[in-house]
Amino acid sequence: MDKKDISEIVENLKYLIEAKDEPIILNIIFGLHPADIAEILYHLDEDHRNYLFSLLDATVASDVIAEMDDVSRFQILDDLDEDRITEIVDEMDSDDATDLVSELSHEIAKKVLDNIDKEDSDEVIELMTHDEDTAGGIMAKEFVSVNQNFTVQQVIEEIRSKSEEVEDIFYIWVVDDYNVLVGIVSLQKLILASAETSVSEIMDRDVISVKTEVDQEEVANIVKKYDLVSIPVVDENNRLMGRITFDDVADVMEEEASEDIHRMAGIVDEEEFRERSIFRISKVRLPWLMVAFFGELLSAFTLSRFEASLSQIITAAFFIPIIMAMGGNAGIQSSTIMVRAMAISEISSYEIRKRLLMELMVSTFNGIICGALLFFVITVFLDQSRFGLLLGVVLVIVIISATLIGAFVPGILKRLKIDPAISTGPFITTWNDVVGLLIYLGSITVFLPYLN
Amino acid sequence: MDKKDISEIVENLKYLIEAKDEPIILNIIFGLHPADIAEILYHLDEDHRNYLFSLLDATVASDVIAEMDDVSRFQILDDLDEDRITEIVDEMDSDDATDLVSELSHEIAKKVLDNIDKEDSDEVIELMTHDEDTAGGIMAKEFVSVNQNFTVQQVIEEIRSKSEEVEDIFYIWVVDDYNVLVGIVSLQKLILASAETSVSEIMDRDVISVKTEVDQEEVANIVKKYDLVSIPVVDENNRLMGRITFDDVADVMEEEASEDIHRMAGIVDEEEFRERSIFRISKVRLPWLMVAFFGELLSAFTLSRFEASLSQIITAAFFIPIIMAMGGNAGIQSSTIMVRAMAISEISSYEIRKRLLMELMVSTFNGIICGALLFFVITVFLDQSRFGLLLGVVLVIVIISATLIGAFVPGILKRLKIDPAISTGPFITTWNDVVGLLIYLGSITVFLPYLN
Repeated sequence: MDKKDISEIVENLKYLIEAKDEPIILNIIFGLHPADIAEILYHLDEDHRNYLFSLLDATVASDVIAEMDDVSRFQILDDLDEDRITEIVDEMDSDDATDLVSELSHEIAKKVLDNIDKEDSDEVIELMTHDEDTAGGIMAKEFVSVNQNFTVQQVIEEIRSKSEEVEDIFYIWVVDDYNVLVGIVSLQKLILASAETSVSEIMDRDVISVKTEVDQEEVANIVKKYDLVSIPVVDENNRLMGRITFDDVADVMEEEASEDIHRMAGIVDEEEFRERSIFRISKVRLPWLMVAFFGELLSAFTLSRFEASLSQIITAAFFIPIIMAMGGNAGIQSSTIMVRAMAISEISSYEIRKRLLMELMVSTFNGIICGALLFFVITVFLDQSRFGLLLGVVLVIVIISATLIGAFVPGILKRLKIDPAISTGPFITTWNDVVGLLIYLGSITVFLPYLN
Repeated sequence: MDKKDISEIVENLKYLIEAKDEPIILNIIFGLHPADIAEILYHLDEDHRNYLFSLLDATVASDVIAEMDDVSRFQILDDLDEDRITEIVDEMDSDDATDLVSELSHEIAKKVLDNIDKEDSDEVIELMTHDEDTAGGIMAKEFVSVNQNFTVQQVIEEIRSKSEEVEDIFYIWVVDDYNVLVGIVSLQKLILASAETSVSEIMDRDVISVKTEVDQEEVANIVKKYDLVSIPVVDENNRLMGRITFDDVADVMEEEASEDIHRMAGIVDEEEFRERSIFRISKVRLPWLMVAFFGELLSAFTLSRFEASLSQIITAAFFIPIIMAMGGNAGIQSSTIMVRAMAISEISSYEIRKRLLMELMVSTFNGIICGALLFFVITVFLDQSRFGLLLGVVLVIVIISATLIGAFVPGILKRLKIDPAISTGPFITTWNDVVGLLIYLGSITVFLPYLN
């Protein structure tokens, strides 16, 4: 369903919800994909949204909730009573149920868990023991596993018995008597095998799996690298614990990319577009603003040390912005390339060294172009060719130094096990500002006698 | 296979390749996943890499090539002769073959296409007609489709006959006599149905498909939204043309996120970490450096207009960096949130308006904190409370104005059908620098008489 259709439906619904025309509303909603309903809810204000959501039956409501972003889900939940929440959780897959329950207050969570199926609540309680950013934290308990002694016919019967509960079965995992993962068989292979064949004859023994405590970003990288549709999660003894599917991985990829992008912009933690708390937004943005603040106080201090030079040649102050900005931009370009490359692929130290050499050459080339241009502008428009020459050379040096700092720092942070993404933000820019201004005013002071 | 294993293998291989110990090398490589071999190749220098690659048989070599990034693939291809390329292309899936052939020189491409299977070369030629960033450009011709009159047994026979050619079959697409897509059936459903059932009885008629000319980013958004494992591609008459699978979509997601991240950093086009041409890197970085350059010349010009004020109160120059940096950082934070949210989800104009209000409040809050701090610092350390007050107030205004510009511009660019991602880079920062300096020096000039 495309944007246009969605906004048309939203317009109709606003009108119908005002009129509380339940039958027609249900008629419109019926048959829509839960992802589309979630999107429609985003476009409605709080009252309309709550009314529409209240019309959904528990199965649809649970699918819709699972599709929503964290902030919107939280807002919807906030307006629901316990019974409704229980009914919704009862319909959810174990991973989604776990996410939802862990967002509830302790008291409500307990009541919900007491009132859903014992088996389901056991699963949720087990899943809640894992850190939410690990394989264990994103896996679901819905999967099909069979004993290695099963025949193909028995496997098919197992699929039949699980088909209600488990959607999207693509692979069957094969375990031994101790639930240790020993193989994998695709439905494609299964469908072509004869009924009496033992599953151990057709299974693939080379199974790629992850341990419960592996970080979700690592899980996403493995799934992406090996093009997997789903990956089994095992405990330290290789016993089968859960399943992570490609759609969970797509969510992780998106989340991790957002996290990197936000960090690069000097936002320390997740910030959702639909966030409503000014305090929370301020909390994730202020820390780096503070770093920049104190860094630039250092710039101010640096400049104050060169007050004598600045008073003599006030024109020098006019070019503070260009020196800062060119260094900052060149540094961000190089660090961004490094940070992104590190985030999406394995990079050897041999490659990093080669890349640093490239950065040196690129920045020299770009620096010379910018420096020459600045020399030209100052010579022609200000008629100060010596000052222009000095400024041009300084710009080249500032661009090269900023680029190298930008290219070096991510690798160093990675070694120190700090997320390199933070290095492209205020951290490097501020550092470059201080270094750039030092180079600039230092040179001016040294060459002041020769400038006129 | 984890990092440690890879680097151990690489170390062993370097030694063995020097010794040209082919049997042991083959023994190590045998059974490795093509993705691991690709990674090993990244860690080797050119000669070692070419030698190792020459040992791979065509099937493995084609899988390895398909796993590599564009730059590395190009480097490998550059050193291969036509016969070897032909042999490799012959083993590839149609989408990978198309990517590879389109990277070859016209002359070699023609020879390769003449020498592979007629059917395969027809597919590649057809796929090459589509723009590479569209559904048609990333789809493959390997899929299983059946006529709606088929029984389940016939469908299974069709799967059997295609199993060699098509890996990863999860869904069967159902077409009418004119090859028009009419339904979809999962292997899970098929495996549970009886052999004589007609496929049209068990198929799902609600098929989500995309047209060949749809942009790949849009395809990725659809696949992600509806959690699809694969999506059928159809022509304008809804006739089935190809298949896009989740792993292609994961590649697109990664590519699009990289593109956004790079654009945000002022890099105009794709830049690969493994890029070897200084000229190409410079070409994608210089344009925004030039925008910043001329923007900051405007800053220099602005400052020069306030020369009189600056000469009178040289201290004002010291705080140019902090005014610029705080505005720049606050602006980047807000624009990044907007740009990323627009990239990954549908956002209504109602939500954008609400968000702008949030940004106003957050920036006022953060601005007041920073402004108060600046007032405090200047009052205590410079003992100039009036100047401190002025600067504090200016900082609040600059942070608010930069934040609002940062939050507004992405939405405007999106309306103008320009990628909002460019707005978080040099564009907004430079604009904010000019506006910020105008506010700063304008205020100083106006309030100069009251400062002492």
